Amino acid sequence: MENDTTKTIPMQLNPVGVVRSEIKTPMLLAGESDLSLEMRMEKVKAHHREVESSISELVIDPDWEELLDGIEGFSHVLVLYWPHLLDPARRNLRKVHPMGRKDMPMQGIFATCSPARPNPVLVSAVSLVARKGNILEVKGLEAVDGSPIVDVKPYSRSYLQVDGMKMPDWMEQLHREMEI
Amino acid sequence: MENDTTKTIPMQLNPVGVVRSEIKTPMLLAGESDLSLEMRMEKVKAHHREVESSISELVIDPDWEELLDGIEGFSHVLVLYWPHLLDPARRNLRKVHPMGRKDMPMQGIFATCSPARPNPVLVSAVSLVARKGNILEVKGLEAVDGSPIVDVKPYSRSYLQVDGMKMPDWMEQLHREMEI
Repeated sequence: MENDTTKTIPMQLNPVGVVRSEIKTPMLLAGESDLSLEMRMEKVKAHHREVESSISELVIDPDWEELLDGIEGFSHVLVLYWPHLLDPARRNLRKVHPMGRKDMPMQGIFATCSPARPNPVLVSAVSLVARKGNILEVKGLEAVDGSPIVDVKPYSRSYLQVDGMKMPDWMEQLHREMEI
Repeated sequence: MENDTTKTIPMQLNPVGVVRSEIKTPMLLAGESDLSLEMRMEKVKAHHREVESSISELVIDPDWEELLDGIEGFSHVLVLYWPHLLDPARRNLRKVHPMGRKDMPMQGIFATCSPARPNPVLVSAVSLVARKGNILEVKGLEAVDGSPIVDVKPYSRSYLQVDGMKMPDWMEQLHREMEI
């Protein structure tokens, strides 16, 4: 019964703002699966370095500006955004090679950070540099320019920090190779 | 122009599953604003203890089961869910006293973890206890029974861990009082 209920709840999102960023394209494009492993990882590493140092603006709709009051007290925020360049057909993907790496075993989408997922709401913890009215300056956000913002939350210890975190070997290897 | 674009992108979520939990009601109900400070915090503390030790089930729609493959390799996952008991009118709230505490200054909604927000997608990092087919057992999820699941992601160091995290005094005080 409750399953039926949840299926009929409307869960409609409305953008509360937009990301302004020097990052204009996603890290990997779906059409690039023919890149060699080496070129692929060089591209990923370069992109990651660019993201790490970049300052993006979260331009919140002026109607919602007041909702930011007090956020200056946090060193970090959690940004929820929509990957608007994603082809909607890719919301039906089931498994992928992590970062298109054919040398790594296929993983279910929920076991990856792929933007292609049934509900493509991407989540990233970033450093809050400054607030200027309805604009937040943040550092290290991977969202491409123009991404609709779904939500901004404080980075709260109780909801987001964990102890004894362990990732599988393939993800540890990707982090090492990306020098994260 | 790009602002116009973001406003017309459809961002429709469809539940990929449902939370099964012993937690049947939210921590604080909107109608309880008349509780004394002391009673309020006792209630919050008791609720938090219950949540911390509770095991919930993320029952993923069997159609999407394959998307979980590989998630067993992670010690923690990030759960995105929808607070289905929230009155939709409360998506328009602008400021609140944190946890209804009138002794604390009003904060903009984006500076709080309030479930009442323009796009009520709640995010929680939890420990992954076991996977049994299409069901994930997780520990410490605050979602109430019946909450629609929006997404499940691996807890990835690069997207979710931060260094030198600082919260404002009011949130530090709430954490202390809740003994988190």
